[in-house]
Amino acid sequence: MNNTAFTLKGNIIYSKGPKELVCIPNGYLVCEEGKVAGVYETLPEKYRQLPCTDHQDRIIIPGLVDLHTHAPQYAIRSLGMDMELLKWLEYNTFPEEAKYSDPEYATKAYSMFVNDLRKSATTRACIFGTIHVNGTEILMDLLERTGLKCKVGKVNMNRNCPEVLCEDSEQSLRDTKLWLESARIKYNNITPIITPRFLPSCTEDLLTELSVICRQEDLPVQSHLSENLLEIEFVKELFPSTEGYADAYNEYGLFGGSVPTIMAHCIYLTEDEIKLAKQNQVFIAHCPDSNMNLSSGIAPVRTYLNQELKMGLGSDVAAGDSLSIFKMMTEAVKVSKLLWRLQDQNLTPLSIDEAFYLGTKGGGEFFGKVGSFEEGYEFDAVVIDDASLEHPQPLTLKQRLERVIYLSDDRNLVSKYVEGIKII
Amino acid sequence: MNNTAFTLKGNIIYSKGPKELVCIPNGYLVCEEGKVAGVYETLPEKYRQLPCTDHQDRIIIPGLVDLHTHAPQYAIRSLGMDMELLKWLEYNTFPEEAKYSDPEYATKAYSMFVNDLRKSATTRACIFGTIHVNGTEILMDLLERTGLKCKVGKVNMNRNCPEVLCEDSEQSLRDTKLWLESARIKYNNITPIITPRFLPSCTEDLLTELSVICRQEDLPVQSHLSENLLEIEFVKELFPSTEGYADAYNEYGLFGGSVPTIMAHCIYLTEDEIKLAKQNQVFIAHCPDSNMNLSSGIAPVRTYLNQELKMGLGSDVAAGDSLSIFKMMTEAVKVSKLLWRLQDQNLTPLSIDEAFYLGTKGGGEFFGKVGSFEEGYEFDAVVIDDASLEHPQPLTLKQRLERVIYLSDDRNLVSKYVEGIKII
Repeated sequence: MNNTAFTLKGNIIYSKGPKELVCIPNGYLVCEEGKVAGVYETLPEKYRQLPCTDHQDRIIIPGLVDLHTHAPQYAIRSLGMDMELLKWLEYNTFPEEAKYSDPEYATKAYSMFVNDLRKSATTRACIFGTIHVNGTEILMDLLERTGLKCKVGKVNMNRNCPEVLCEDSEQSLRDTKLWLESARIKYNNITPIITPRFLPSCTEDLLTELSVICRQEDLPVQSHLSENLLEIEFVKELFPSTEGYADAYNEYGLFGGSVPTIMAHCIYLTEDEIKLAKQNQVFIAHCPDSNMNLSSGIAPVRTYLNQELKMGLGSDVAAGDSLSIFKMMTEAVKVSKLLWRLQDQNLTPLSIDEAFYLGTKGGGEFFGKVGSFEEGYEFDAVVIDDASLEHPQPLTLKQRLERVIYLSDDRNLVSKYVEGIKII
Repeated sequence: MNNTAFTLKGNIIYSKGPKELVCIPNGYLVCEEGKVAGVYETLPEKYRQLPCTDHQDRIIIPGLVDLHTHAPQYAIRSLGMDMELLKWLEYNTFPEEAKYSDPEYATKAYSMFVNDLRKSATTRACIFGTIHVNGTEILMDLLERTGLKCKVGKVNMNRNCPEVLCEDSEQSLRDTKLWLESARIKYNNITPIITPRFLPSCTEDLLTELSVICRQEDLPVQSHLSENLLEIEFVKELFPSTEGYADAYNEYGLFGGSVPTIMAHCIYLTEDEIKLAKQNQVFIAHCPDSNMNLSSGIAPVRTYLNQELKMGLGSDVAAGDSLSIFKMMTEAVKVSKLLWRLQDQNLTPLSIDEAFYLGTKGGGEFFGKVGSFEEGYEFDAVVIDDASLEHPQPLTLKQRLERVIYLSDDRNLVSKYVEGIKII
């Protein structure tokens, strides 16, 4: 399926690191076996026989990576944005997620989510479903057909939630195993990820058992960490014997190390938690839009970049109001400026290069060699036509990228490749 | 031109006050002589003979109002967003504004700005030009043809700027009078507004003379106030004899009272300045996007609402990256949440109702009875088709408005009326 080789010609931009943006005007991007074989200003002789799509003045960048989003919340994005996390879950989110026990509603609602994700510049996403096995399979079926590569989780939760969404531990584990049985063999593009909602929703025994599943089945985990001050207080009450939020996850074997882990938010990590996250190679999903909408705060991304933590961006729909990772890049920059201004002048605001890195290679690393055009990276690419973004003056390629990030929308996306397969 | 009467049928939404959102499903909005004659659930007998456009399930809201934007900066929006105000002016803005001495460049660049403003949901805007008379007339000519109602200012500046943009006082006043001569008679839709850039760019004598022009010619004024901490320090150095930034404007007769005044930003007003702004009925243009992009800070909008100051929203392109006043509504809400979270828990975040008010009636008041559908208001209306914003669940009309504010773009705008004239 991936054994074709071809070349794209156009204005190529990608990140090698947070401060290493590479811009190749009128370059060639070569795909072999679903991987990047190289980026060239002049196409080497050996590739000249390959089929070449000439995108002329268009821009070609790596597919964007969404490290954290909730498919069943897509229908309520932008609604009821006047609560903090715990109330928002109670009044907006849980009632909506309960609807996904109904396959008809799940199909209708997930189709809208999947269709919009397909049309976006995102090629990889880590996605929360609901507790429902059937509903989560519907989501995975729909995603599989798009050609996007996603990690999807059936949610586990067995306390502090409405009865209709509250599993008992046995049922939660039984359903998880049932779901994994089909999920592990049924799909080419979609893989399962273990998904305890967050500490307040899970008992110790459930967390421990989920950790066993991760190790037995070699599966990653995704959850939430230190998003909201009231949530953090609540975790302290619920897990009095642990040293803190991250420590509790770690104690139950769900905080990196041998279990690849994404933790969304990480706004209020202590120094010890930062150290632990680094040591265990936990990925932080920075979700600036969500963190504004739920009045959660601003994550100190500069600190995490300085300490070289693993990190990417998350749309966190529906606390975030958009699936656009371009928008998350701009908001990551914006909130970093406010954190610098209002709280700590040592935390230099993010540059657009850094934000672009986070939304591509930074988050992509959770999927392996993803999010860059360096040799050997999976060939995820999106082609952007920015001609509709009119301007009267000449622009550098870097400036055109800035405009794409701030100003483009789905109309500007021309095509999209995932592991060398053209899906749009 | 305005002596027609007609009716629009649809889902009608407007604000009476910051906390008074009115939603009339399947209602009738009646226009007579360019003004709102009334909003009705059932159309009164006397209006049943009027031509009626049935917009069925579409949403009809007042045209949005942009109290502060810079047309000549539109070309550089989203570029070089890594500086604070004074450096950003020096490196990004002034070099761009200098180009508007060339009528060809001005025509090309202003056409892009005007075309995008026309396609937006905005019906009224207060707009900065440059120092150039000819360039500013080009902008006014282009705007006039759209049917939008705008106040446009030739900028005055005679110090602390590059030579090519630095007027001497006499020239500045001579050019202003020259510009006013034609501007006051040439246009139906566009009116002039006196526009000293901001205190650092203007000497005392220039400010005083501009104030005389305002009074002689019965003109309003627009400028900037307390946007950035370094700017505020600079103003203190430049005007040592005044008590502060607002006080200096006031001393030179450019701070409300008999001269209707818009001051953009107002992030760091002192208590005395707030009192003076209230007393003099100065309009604050709150520009949340700009204030993030230039790391300026967050204006305490809650304080201003509590004190019942006059206030609206400004896109402040190009420190703001978008002309969309819908986006400014969402960002006003978002930054208010961060201010509450990070700085002052007494400053309750804005509700979406309040943000909608600010972007319609709040700012509209600067234009008179504008920005609402109460009887006697100018008939500025935009018709939004939100059918493309798919959703699986039933929604209230209020929820549909929330989605329009967060999720819509120019594709959703169906038609636009200004003072009863259909311009789209």
